[in-house]
Order: sequence, then structure tokens, then C-alpha cells
Amino acid sequence: MKCPDRRGIVHEITGFIAGLGGNILELEQFVAQDEDEFFMRLVWSADGFEVPFSKFDLSFQDVQKKLGAAYWIDDSEKKDRMALFVSGELHCMAEVLSQFYLGNLPVDIPLIIGNHENAKELAEKFHIKFIHTPTKEVDIKEVEKTQIDILSRHKINLIGLARYMRILSADFIEKYPDGIINIHHSFLPAFHGANPYKQAYERGVKIIGATAHFVTEQLDQGPIIAQDTREIHHGYSRDLLRRAGQEIEKKVFIRALQKQLQRKIIRYGNKTVVFE
Amino acid sequence: MKCPDRRGIVHEITGFIAGLGGNILELEQFVAQDEDEFFMRLVWSADGFEVPFSKFDLSFQDVQKKLGAAYWIDDSEKKDRMALFVSGELHCMAEVLSQFYLGNLPVDIPLIIGNHENAKELAEKFHIKFIHTPTKEVDIKEVEKTQIDILSRHKINLIGLARYMRILSADFIEKYPDGIINIHHSFLPAFHGANPYKQAYERGVKIIGATAHFVTEQLDQGPIIAQDTREIHHGYSRDLLRRAGQEIEKKVFIRALQKQLQRKIIRYGNKTVVFE
Amino acid sequence: MKCPDRRGIVHEITGFIAGLGGNILELEQFVAQDEDEFFMRLVWSADGFEVPFSKFDLSFQDVQKKLGAAYWIDDSEKKDRMALFVSGELHCMAEVLSQFYLGNLPVDIPLIIGNHENAKELAEKFHIKFIHTPTKEVDIKEVEKTQIDILSRHKINLIGLARYMRILSADFIEKYPDGIINIHHSFLPAFHGANPYKQAYERGVKIIGATAHFVTEQLDQGPIIAQDTREIHHGYSRDLLRRAGQEIEKKVFIRALQKQLQRKIIRYGNKTVVFE
Amino acid sequence: MKCPDRRGIVHEITGFIAGLGGNILELEQFVAQDEDEFFMRLVWSADGFEVPFSKFDLSFQDVQKKLGAAYWIDDSEKKDRMALFVSGELHCMAEVLSQFYLGNLPVDIPLIIGNHENAKELAEKFHIKFIHTPTKEVDIKEVEKTQIDILSRHKINLIGLARYMRILSADFIEKYPDGIINIHHSFLPAFHGANPYKQAYERGVKIIGATAHFVTEQLDQGPIIAQDTREIHHGYSRDLLRRAGQEIEKKVFIRALQKQLQRKIIRYGNKTVVFE
Repeated sequence: MKCPDRRGIVHEITGFIAGLGGNILELEQFVAQDEDEFFMRLVWSADGFEVPFSKFDLSFQDVQKKLGAAYWIDDSEKKDRMALFVSGELHCMAEVLSQFYLGNLPVDIPLIIGNHENAKELAEKFHIKFIHTPTKEVDIKEVEKTQIDILSRHKINLIGLARYMRILSADFIEKYPDGIINIHHSFLPAFHGANPYKQAYERGVKIIGATAHFVTEQLDQGPIIAQDTREIHHGYSRDLLRRAGQEIEKKVFIRALQKQLQRKIIRYGNKTVVFE
Repeated sequence: MKCPDRRGIVHEITGFIAGLGGNILELEQFVAQDEDEFFMRLVWSADGFEVPFSKFDLSFQDVQKKLGAAYWIDDSEKKDRMALFVSGELHCMAEVLSQFYLGNLPVDIPLIIGNHENAKELAEKFHIKFIHTPTKEVDIKEVEKTQIDILSRHKINLIGLARYMRILSADFIEKYPDGIINIHHSFLPAFHGANPYKQAYERGVKIIGATAHFVTEQLDQGPIIAQDTREIHHGYSRDLLRRAGQEIEKKVFIRALQKQLQRKIIRYGNKTVVFE
Repeated sequence: MKCPDRRGIVHEITGFIAGLGGNILELEQFVAQDEDEFFMRLVWSADGFEVPFSKFDLSFQDVQKKLGAAYWIDDSEKKDRMALFVSGELHCMAEVLSQFYLGNLPVDIPLIIGNHENAKELAEKFHIKFIHTPTKEVDIKEVEKTQIDILSRHKINLIGLARYMRILSADFIEKYPDGIINIHHSFLPAFHGANPYKQAYERGVKIIGATAHFVTEQLDQGPIIAQDTREIHHGYSRDLLRRAGQEIEKKVFIRALQKQLQRKIIRYGNKTVVFE
Repeated sequence: MKCPDRRGIVHEITGFIAGLGGNILELEQFVAQDEDEFFMRLVWSADGFEVPFSKFDLSFQDVQKKLGAAYWIDDSEKKDRMALFVSGELHCMAEVLSQFYLGNLPVDIPLIIGNHENAKELAEKFHIKFIHTPTKEVDIKEVEKTQIDILSRHKINLIGLARYMRILSADFIEKYPDGIINIHHSFLPAFHGANPYKQAYERGVKIIGATAHFVTEQLDQGPIIAQDTREIHHGYSRDLLRRAGQEIEKKVFIRALQKQLQRKIIRYGNKTVVFE
């Protein structure tokens, strides 16, 4: 939840939950001093909580109005249904599948959509449906229509762009307002757009990085979820940059997905609060 | 030295030095594959070397011509004479003075120039002359003329901009073509220009950083020498960003100065080779 | 404060503070799941709080008993009085003095005690009294007695061992049960005891580090407050290790002192909770 | 190669290679100052090199004797044949298979040996033979005999212990004197032996790490190839430590394998030179 900051919010909310028999398991709160905005993430046990999930909104509405709060509530036992979008480079997709296979990503992955065909083999190793939607020499609006249709049939609510090298239209993005996470292969805002490693090579930087962010209409401008960098030096050719960068991309992408799956991200303005 | 890459350069050069009785103490070389350019840093002992320092150019000219090499030679026992330029924030200057006092910076620091007066006390603690050249409500050309005059009288060959918040003119910079090192408080090319921490706060990045670079006419566009970053999170206010960033600035600035003092930097194009 | 974990602690405490007119400014809590222990740090404004500082214990005792809580309360406007202990290597002391001078350490530093004399000059640059207590060829018990006497006269409540190379006796340590912070030049528990960089060199590690910890009777075994590491490689001689390590030592030592000055550390068992 | 340091080694060797028509592609050298030992890695093109691979030893012997050099020569087009050993935790194995699949590990992996059966499925996804050699309630000598037999039949020359939780006998290790690389889940020498994350939790460290090393008879004491760490805090339970650590283990293990496959590691004493 988020709301304007004022005295006693924590007390109010914890009292509300406790009063209905809820046992608080996790509580993280944060006040953005410069904006006077309060953010909180609360996890409580459904055992012994008097209000069924479906009636929570009704039950909470007095407190919500009093605080002027926006809030989101989810059942932590219900898994997100995520689709991966992928192009020719498969390292981020491979990492997601590995982590998924090892049980580190609490999510369902019903399908992978690629505009190249080379991801098919890897997807199928992990028994995930692969759908090839080529984007060359085709009407991109038609492609997106097909994709949205597929996603909708599979009840996808979260999309991970695992180095998908096509720009999505505003219409597409609008359908998943909180739910498209992209991994960009630079430390944004540096080197947005195409070929960030080439740009980095030419600028002669001594660090490279990666950025996971929510996708918005503005290319590479959405709220940043996670970033990381590593040192490089003059000895890194364009190709070495690309390979060294892949390790950061994997790590940052997974971190962002995990935070999203655990509902640890709150968007505000073009920024994010990401609880630990 | 640097020259177009070809077979046998290392053999040629090591043979030249050894043939004149030089004992090679350090050798670092690097080939920029994409540009076919060869770079080498060589340190040898003057003991037993047949050619006096002043005659080296003459002695080396055959090899130099054969390889088409550009090279720079220095006497490692002769110290650079560095001036620091500083404004209101003193953490980079304080770090330089600390490291200098502890014997970690092999340099002479005859003077510190500031456009605020608050650095005077700290400079004088370390027995370094402080000269106040205000930059507000004055003719900046006159200020620069005064500064150049002072620098010249003190035989300064290296300038460290220790968070000096004024832009130097092309004329000024030209006088020190390899010798002005600036510390910028962002991971360039992100957030160049003014108020990088404010920019970083507003963009909601999850890392901050600092960049040491040679100063050129284009603001914050010169060859990068060193960079570093650290993770931050939503909990960092503008002020916390600034403080956290200071630690990186100090570290990156010192690293760049040390590399320059040890002649471990070779510029090429708008980039640098920085040997370890 | 800390207490056994149970339902409703946050609600109870925030209710207690709010009920007395206190405006909570910062709240951090943590539950050690494996030990079922609850930890909280709370900062509230004295403005409008009905209970004067001196009467807080009385006022809080019902809640305290109910929860079985241990707690510590401090006036954030009252500064700690810290003494530094130092031997021959001055980089940690220099960093503390720099940060202190720049206003980044909210503390008073009435004196520095050294068993070498070389710190005197630097201490006096910053107008801090330096006292030389040699530890060679003397009765160490007498030395400690003198030191304790000096510390007591200067009302010191916090001691920072800024690379002080003498072991303190149990009797000495006992007098400052929460108040001696040491910086050890390795990533403990690796390389405890003497000459950690030599040990690291001989073991051929690829990282070095530093550890700030509370001093206890067991040498280098006290609760760890902060640690950091950096990568090194085969090219680091013993001397380069030492120099590279100094930068980490400075950083880790300052971080630990800042946490202590802000009362962000809670000890439990031989461990620490360190709030952000 | 390695040899006692003296003047002119680089010149001598580069002259030898160039004299036989070899074009040097990569040259890295290092002098261990404290031990007066010289190390070099040289890659040259077989094209135009007059000496066939099989006759190199003969051709080089004069130089080798003159310098007192130990050296190792390999055909970079010939791939190592690596076996993975694995127990119940599969993250390191999964990472190797991912990187292998994506073409980042220039190696053949004919088989995976596990003392649990759960790795079978993942191995077979990547069409790698899995052999189950249980180690409970069996004669461990017999198990090792079987394993050695299998390895020998598959012409394995490199073994990667991808979190294999059994100690190998001296006899086994002896058969692969330079060829067993283990990933240990701590920043050695801290927390050697069993349960390093439990040890780390109990000691209350603020960093965790991983170490890749050559296996020798002394458990967790062999020459270190690569290490890395990351910061943690009091909020990491034993289980979170384990998960956070897995990411470092993967990274460090892959790094060590890549260095070994590229012949960038030279062992000396109980240490390693690892070229970049």
C-alpha cells in the first residue's frame, strides 16, 4: 500500500490486521521524505484471519479512506503466470529456466514466445510450449494481435522480456500495465536504445551494467527495478563486453522477477520502492 | 608507446632496451584488436643503461620510425607538480591530502586553488598554499588568466579538479592537453552536466557512481580513466545519495591520479588504455 | 530493543509512543526467525512527547515487562565521546579525522592515544590532544591503568581501535562492554591474529577484506559489525596487498563507527543486528 | 611456462617463436617479486609455424634448459573432456550445462557422475550421460575404483566437482594432479569443511562467498583459482544464506573452469597465477 505520510499509519494498519485475528509475518515500510509518501508491504497469515480474501476490500474500506491509501492485495499461494519473450540471445531465458527448474522462481511459465526460432529447443527441454511469431517482413500490428491472443488464452499476467529485441506498441503495453519487465543491457539511463555494448565500447567506459525495468511507452524509460554493474577495462573488445555483460543481465533480470513474484515492488511516479 | 600492430614489436623493443644494457622491470602490453593498435608500457632501470635520458630520443628514432610509434618517456624519480582546484565540497581534496600525507601519492602539491574560501583552513593544515580566485560576479577570462599565471609560476604540470564546480575554457584546457583530471559525480555518460545526484534521484536509479576523466572542451565527454558504482535503493534521499556518492568519488579520483602519476595511462581517440 | 517474538509487538510499541504524543520518525524491525527473537529500533521526536527523558524507564516499565524486552534509550542530540587508539599505520585514523572534519561523524573526539609517537603531528593538525603511551619494555598493566585513567578523565564512552596493534586485557575491555570497536585487516574469521596480509599472501587468496567488530576477550572473535572485500590477483605482492587493504579498512571502520554513533547496532549472542 | 626470473626472458622466448615463423597472438607475463619467479602465457598461430606440435619439445629444449623453465604446451583446438561430479544441489551443474549449451564453455562433457539420483533428469535434458554411483553404505574404495574406470573409459582429463559432497581419496586425486576443480561454498580459508553456511550464520559474518580451487589431499586447502563474495546482513536466515550463496558459487565455478579450459592458470607452490 501507499498513502500520504502522517502519524500513526503503522499502528493503524497493524491494529486493523491484528483486530481481525491476523498474525503479521512480514512488515516493511518506507517513507519517501522528499515526497511525504508512505509505503508499506505487509504479509500476514490467512490462518485465523476472520475476513475471507474476497471480502477484504469491503472490510478495509474505512481504513483505506481514512488514510487515502492505494493498495494491492494478493494471495501468496496463487502463482503468477509468466510468459517469456525472447529473440536470438538465450542467456536470460536459459537462466530463468534453470532457476525455475531448481525451484527458485515461484511462478508458472506456460509459454515462451520468440521472434527467432532458435529458442524452441531449449524451451522444449523444459517442457515449455514455444511459439514462434516472426517479426520480419510482417505487419507488426498483426503479430501483436496474435501474441495478445495467445497470452490471453494462456491467462498470462506477467511478461518477462528476456532480451526480446522488438519494441512493443503502446496498445500492447497498456494491456499489462504493471506486468512487463524488460532487461536492458546497460546501466540506464546510459546507452538506451540499440546496441548498448557497442555504445559502451565506443565511449570507452570502465564499467558495464544491466537494468531491469517496467516497460512503458517510452523506450527504456520505465521505472527501474534493479541494476548492477561490473568493472571492465580497455582490454574488453566489443565481443568480450557482450559476454561479460550477459552475466550481469542474467543476475539483474532474475532479481527483478523474484521481487515482482514476491510482490515486493511498489511503483510510484516513474520510480519504484523495492523492499528487501 | 603506441603504434600500429604487427609481428615482433615486443621482441624489437625488448631487444632495443636490453641491447643498451637496460634491465626491464615492468612490461605491459595490449593490442586493441578492433583497431589493430598496439600499446606498451615499459619500465627499465637507468642503472647500466648506456643512453642518458636526454639522448633517448635520438637513440630510439630508428626503431620509432620503423614501427611508426608514438611514445612518451619520463624519469620515474622526477615528481609531477599538481595543483588541486576545489569549490565548496572538500571530500575529494581531503582524501588527496590524506593520501599525500600518508605517502601514497608520489607527487608535489605546491598549491590549491579554490573559488570558495572554505578550503583554506584544510589546505593550510597540510602546509599547502591556498589561493582564492572567486568566480562570482567577475570576468571569468580574467580569473583564468590569473590562474594560469599562478600555475605557471609554480611550474604545475598536472591539475586535479577535486569537485571544482566551474567549467574551464577551451583556451585554459589547451594549455594542459594531457593534464587535467576531473572527478564527475555520476557514472558517465549518464547524468553529465549539473546536479547528477538530483538527476539520479529523479530517474530512480538503483546504482550511483563516479567517473574520473581527462578534461576536454566537451563538458564531461573526455576520455574516461576510472569509474566505479555502488548499489543504492529507494530509501536514499537526495542527501543520502550525495553522501554515499562522496565515498565513490574519493576512491575513483585517487585511483585516476595514481594511474596518471605512475604513467599508466595512454590516451587514444577519446578512450584510454589504463595498465594495471 | 529486543524481546522474544510474539504477535502485536509493533502495534504495542507504536501505540505506547503515539499514546504519549510521540511522533515516530524512524522504525526498523527485524525478527530472527531461527531464534524467535524480535528487534526494533525506533526514533521519535521529543517535541510533544509527554515523558521527559529521565522518566522514560518508569513510564515504559509495564510494556517492557509484558514483552520481556531489553532496551536502550538515548538522546540523539547528545554526542558520544570517542577516543581513538592508534599505532604506526595512520590511514584509519586519517580517515576518521577527515570525515570528522567534514562533518560526517556526529561525535566528539577529545583525544587520541598512540603507542607510537608518529600520530602526534596528524592529531594536532586537527586540534585533537595526542597522548603517547608506549607499550614496549613497560608493564602493560600499568599502561592500561594510565590509559583508563585518561579515558575516564575525558569522559570517553566509545573507543575506536584505528589499527591499534596491542591486545587489550579483559579488565580493560570490561570497562567498555559495548564500546570498543576494532578494525581487523582481514575478512574474519579468516586470518585472525597477527599479519593477516602476510597470511593472505601465503594462502594465495583472490580476495582480501576487512572486518569491524566489537572487541571481546577472545582476540578477533567479537560480534562483527561490518565487513567488505575486494578482488585481488596473483600480481599483488605483500606490500600491494597491504595498500589495497587499507582502502577497505578505512571504509569498513567508518561504516561501523557511523552505525554505532547512530545507535543502529543491537548485539545478540555473538552477533549483531545492524539496521540500515 | 615458469622459470627463475632473469634479464631478457621475454626477448628470448619471443625471439624463439618469431624465429620459427610464429605469430604471437597473446602474451601475458608476470614476475612474482618476492619469489623471483617468472611466469608467462603465450599463444601463437600454428599457421606458418615451422615446428609441428609433436616436435615442439625437441625444438624448444635448448631455450628451456638455458632458462631452467617448466612449461606446458597445448593445442587450443583440442577440447578438454570434462566430467562433472554432483550430489543433491544442482545449481552449479545447471549453470555449467546452461553455459555449455550456449557455447560459452569450449569443452566436451561426456558424462556426469552423481551420488544422488536427482541429477539424472537434468543431465539427460542436455543429452549427457548420467551415471549414479551411490556413496552411502558402500565400500568407498570400490566406488572410486568404479568411477576411475568410467572416467578412464571416457578419456576424461578434467573433473569439475559441482557441489559434490564427498571427499575424494588421495589415490583418486593423484590420478588427476592438475585436473580436479572444486567449488567450495565459503570464502576460504574461512569455513572450510562441512556446512559453511551454517558456520557463517553462527559466526554472524556480513559477507558470504565462494571459492574455486584445485583439489589436493588436504581438504579445502588446494590452490585457489577464483573467489568472490557478496554482502549480507542480519536478516539472512540459514536458508537465505544458502540461496544467496548459490549465485556466487555458480559464478566462481564457471570462472575457474573457463580459466582452466583456456590454460590461463599456472600453479606454483600452493598458489596460482591466473592470467586475464
